[in-house]
Amino acid sequence: MYRNHTNGELRLSHVGQKITLSGWVQKVRDKGFMIWVDLRDRYGITQLIFDEERTPKEMMEKARTLGREFVIQIEGAVIERESKNKNIPTGEIEILVSELTILNVSKTPPFTIEDETDGGDELRMKYRYLDIRRNPVRENLIFRSKVSMEVRNYLTQQGFIDVETPYLIKSTPEGARDFVVPSRMNEGQFYALPQSPQTFKQLLMIGGLDKYFQIVKCFRDEDLRADRQPEFTQIDCEMAFVEQEDILNVFEGLTRHLLKEINGFEIEEFPRITFDEAMRRYGNDKPDIRFGMEFGELNEVTQHKDFGVFNNAELVVGISVPGGNSYSRKEIDKLIDWIRRPQVGALGMVYCRCNEDGSFKSSVDKFYNQEDFAQWADLTGAKSGDLICILSGEKNKVRAQLSALRMELAERLGLRNPKVFAPLWVVDFPLLEWDEETERFHAMHHPFTSPKLGQIDLLATNPGDVKANAYDLVLNGNEIGGGSIRIHDKETQALMFDYLGFTPDEAKAQFGFLMDAFEYGAPPHGGLAFGLDRLVAILGGQETIRDFIAFPKNNSGRDVMIDAPSPIADDQLTELCLKLNL
Amino acid sequence: MYRNHTNGELRLSHVGQKITLSGWVQKVRDKGFMIWVDLRDRYGITQLIFDEERTPKEMMEKARTLGREFVIQIEGAVIERESKNKNIPTGEIEILVSELTILNVSKTPPFTIEDETDGGDELRMKYRYLDIRRNPVRENLIFRSKVSMEVRNYLTQQGFIDVETPYLIKSTPEGARDFVVPSRMNEGQFYALPQSPQTFKQLLMIGGLDKYFQIVKCFRDEDLRADRQPEFTQIDCEMAFVEQEDILNVFEGLTRHLLKEINGFEIEEFPRITFDEAMRRYGNDKPDIRFGMEFGELNEVTQHKDFGVFNNAELVVGISVPGGNSYSRKEIDKLIDWIRRPQVGALGMVYCRCNEDGSFKSSVDKFYNQEDFAQWADLTGAKSGDLICILSGEKNKVRAQLSALRMELAERLGLRNPKVFAPLWVVDFPLLEWDEETERFHAMHHPFTSPKLGQIDLLATNPGDVKANAYDLVLNGNEIGGGSIRIHDKETQALMFDYLGFTPDEAKAQFGFLMDAFEYGAPPHGGLAFGLDRLVAILGGQETIRDFIAFPKNNSGRDVMIDAPSPIADDQLTELCLKLNL
Repeated sequence: MYRNHTNGELRLSHVGQKITLSGWVQKVRDKGFMIWVDLRDRYGITQLIFDEERTPKEMMEKARTLGREFVIQIEGAVIERESKNKNIPTGEIEILVSELTILNVSKTPPFTIEDETDGGDELRMKYRYLDIRRNPVRENLIFRSKVSMEVRNYLTQQGFIDVETPYLIKSTPEGARDFVVPSRMNEGQFYALPQSPQTFKQLLMIGGLDKYFQIVKCFRDEDLRADRQPEFTQIDCEMAFVEQEDILNVFEGLTRHLLKEINGFEIEEFPRITFDEAMRRYGNDKPDIRFGMEFGELNEVTQHKDFGVFNNAELVVGISVPGGNSYSRKEIDKLIDWIRRPQVGALGMVYCRCNEDGSFKSSVDKFYNQEDFAQWADLTGAKSGDLICILSGEKNKVRAQLSALRMELAERLGLRNPKVFAPLWVVDFPLLEWDEETERFHAMHHPFTSPKLGQIDLLATNPGDVKANAYDLVLNGNEIGGGSIRIHDKETQALMFDYLGFTPDEAKAQFGFLMDAFEYGAPPHGGLAFGLDRLVAILGGQETIRDFIAFPKNNSGRDVMIDAPSPIADDQLTELCLKLNL
Repeated sequence: MYRNHTNGELRLSHVGQKITLSGWVQKVRDKGFMIWVDLRDRYGITQLIFDEERTPKEMMEKARTLGREFVIQIEGAVIERESKNKNIPTGEIEILVSELTILNVSKTPPFTIEDETDGGDELRMKYRYLDIRRNPVRENLIFRSKVSMEVRNYLTQQGFIDVETPYLIKSTPEGARDFVVPSRMNEGQFYALPQSPQTFKQLLMIGGLDKYFQIVKCFRDEDLRADRQPEFTQIDCEMAFVEQEDILNVFEGLTRHLLKEINGFEIEEFPRITFDEAMRRYGNDKPDIRFGMEFGELNEVTQHKDFGVFNNAELVVGISVPGGNSYSRKEIDKLIDWIRRPQVGALGMVYCRCNEDGSFKSSVDKFYNQEDFAQWADLTGAKSGDLICILSGEKNKVRAQLSALRMELAERLGLRNPKVFAPLWVVDFPLLEWDEETERFHAMHHPFTSPKLGQIDLLATNPGDVKANAYDLVLNGNEIGGGSIRIHDKETQALMFDYLGFTPDEAKAQFGFLMDAFEYGAPPHGGLAFGLDRLVAILGGQETIRDFIAFPKNNSGRDVMIDAPSPIADDQLTELCLKLNL
């Protein structure tokens, strides 16, 4: 037996006991006549002591050979420390070592195994197994495990059944690109890895399982943006005989449960907002509502003067920056530079200072008067001491730009407190969205989402106006979940495929099984999927998902630790009836 | 709201209440003046009633249009039934319907949605979503979900952390074939899907996570034998600072917990047997010990006479068939035909009847006398009324043949009671096994398994004799789990790769990351993986895993429902830098 205690559990009450511990050497302090070793494992740190008086000479010598990250086993007696360390739970005791076994040696690690390490990102990823030894990374993984288990407990108690759906499925190149898997047994044919278990969970509802969930890996072969992974994890859920209201209630319950159990954060009913309203008030379909700074639309109070920039704009819209009047001219200029960066892309910004005396001072003083400014302040909620920032232009673009500015300023102002949680349902999403690149409508959620009752005829005349039974759950400015009530009849589904540009043959080849299933008594159904990686990161008070994934890939989709992907052997290719075409 | 009750919950105490139900039409009985409809959902069946006196005429007409598997919603009043049905929990009430809404119609299903269906295997798989509506299939899936959750609860309580390891990893064509995934972003390179998370769980131990588990899909591109799936699920576990004994204790605890919680079956300490002993006593490394019929080795008591077949055999070995003396000559001949089938491959069988009067009658009476037979009976444990069946030949082959006969006879004799559970640890597996095809040694478990202490030098002289720290957990004649204590130092691992025929370059290219990791303080560690599909099937009293998988593939690795795998578009191939080579 390598140990009978862990390094986190010994206390004063153990003094006098003979114990066995194992772990890693965190630190060695050698004072000549005395050597202290901090022994570490997942559970904590215990101080070992060797001294000239009580430790045999050979063992002193052996202790001197210990290096950082050596793996050792010791036997010894628990004794009370003279100078206690109040910072660690085992700080009142130490172990007088009577036997020391080196289980494994270690080369000097390429970075320090400390909470704040000297290792850069690349190095930490290459030696991820060492990175995981660091407290913050290990604690993140334990945190994730805890969140997953709470999700399972809650949903199981609600009668959900955990069903594993297949990973080797069929390629349906609608939406993102599939990862494909050549089949050796079926020459020239391919499986695809699921972008989500969407069709399977719908089939489970048609199969009468009533309530389904799964915590499941999904795959998208996308050009990776920052903080995206080619494989990611969903909490995937579906229910039969439900309307939107039922789904929102159940998953609001789940989220409330997590906030309470994981974060000790209690919250009553989640607010709801329509997609249109979210865009109008925040310029964003996943607004962070931990803080205000809501949009004020200013067309009516700006387009009556000779200022052409505003007069020609589809939308003039502003926000009030709390305390922003304290910004110097130089700071404001830097803000303008910031919004002009290509990532944001605004052309310029008009601002208006709200002075303490109630007067206003603006960059467009020559076009507007104090009464105008007072109206701007009113519409943006600006008070004395604030700064009104105004952008103008094409509606969708200017909203996105002002939203970026709003988030940036909130970050700078410390309004995005990671200890505060502000969930929000965004509902009534459009069914379709216009894609500039392909110049046609795409499904905003996915092709299985049902349009709102009575709106299906609108598809023919105003497709962009059709609203869907689709909803997102937003937490602190991040979409943590989204779903919809599904289509459950063949005609509507066929119509939808038609609008999305599928020929009947394509629709049949790719989704024939689902449309067939709709003909055998498909119940009304709907569901939702949470992005587990992001959910865990946000509950953990962070926004970077990579820190909550044991072995993440880099932005080129590579695992730099195992060096994958990599070339494969020629006979593997031959068996798969494939040739490289480089 | 589609319902305020399910179809499994209404009782006499609900009589008089107005309720709303939804579900599928299981059955319609139309007596003209009265129509009964059985309404079904996941939770049960509720009887609806329409009658001329109390139901409006149009609703009677509408009820007459209902067909099997129509999806309906009804409102009505709970009333007491006149003739109660004691067979179902809702059998004391029925619903007098006041509103009937058809939510969806259904074509006539291609097979009956009953416990015993008229649908064949192919048809059931093609319409798996209908098959899942049948009670036995649905209950199997619910059962699986329950087992998974119990596993998670137990391991979480024991301090195991659920960590998700990556699915897009590196191809290491040792062992079974990998499924590979071409990378678009890394031209000409491939990921592989994991055959197991083996190396990652070892890295997690090196990373100090101490106790890891995951319920995870694994992938093997094998030519499918009956009841194998290209994707299957493992309960994957690993622990640091453990010896074999620690692992056996923890997972014996898990298995005992499952037998108790799931099956109400209590069992004390699991018996243990070495691999060698299992082969000698049962001819099999996963013996079913719910019954006896142990092997009796008969070389010493058969090779002293003129019977050349036995004299020339490496092994003469028999079993006693309880009550087998009642078999007619014809029945015994059929048994001999059975063992001569190519799947078993024995050349012939000698038998010896144990008569009620204590005398023996054998097929080799001319070579042996009653004293010989008495010794045979003694060594095989045969009593009056039994039949001794004896095979002979090359040791490994004859053991396999007699093991097959033992299992077949036990099956016929009803000795394999699915309600009885007989777990067994098989320990001390050989490290290597000789592969006839490639004419070299392979790792019996996998290349990361450590040899028994002090046996590593044997590798050079008698590689086949080296025993490993490897163990299997056997339940009712099936291997449900297996694992080992791993190698945790670079030298031993390099030596092992060398013995397995890897060049140093190959070993480095495929497993360099692991060998590097061993140099940074790898702790002793080991683990075990359960095959969840089989575990669930056996706990469910069955041996076919396909019945416990929501969407299984057929023996050609096809999903006949969605028709996968399938050809992909040319531009998908082009993007992946691949060409078909058919």
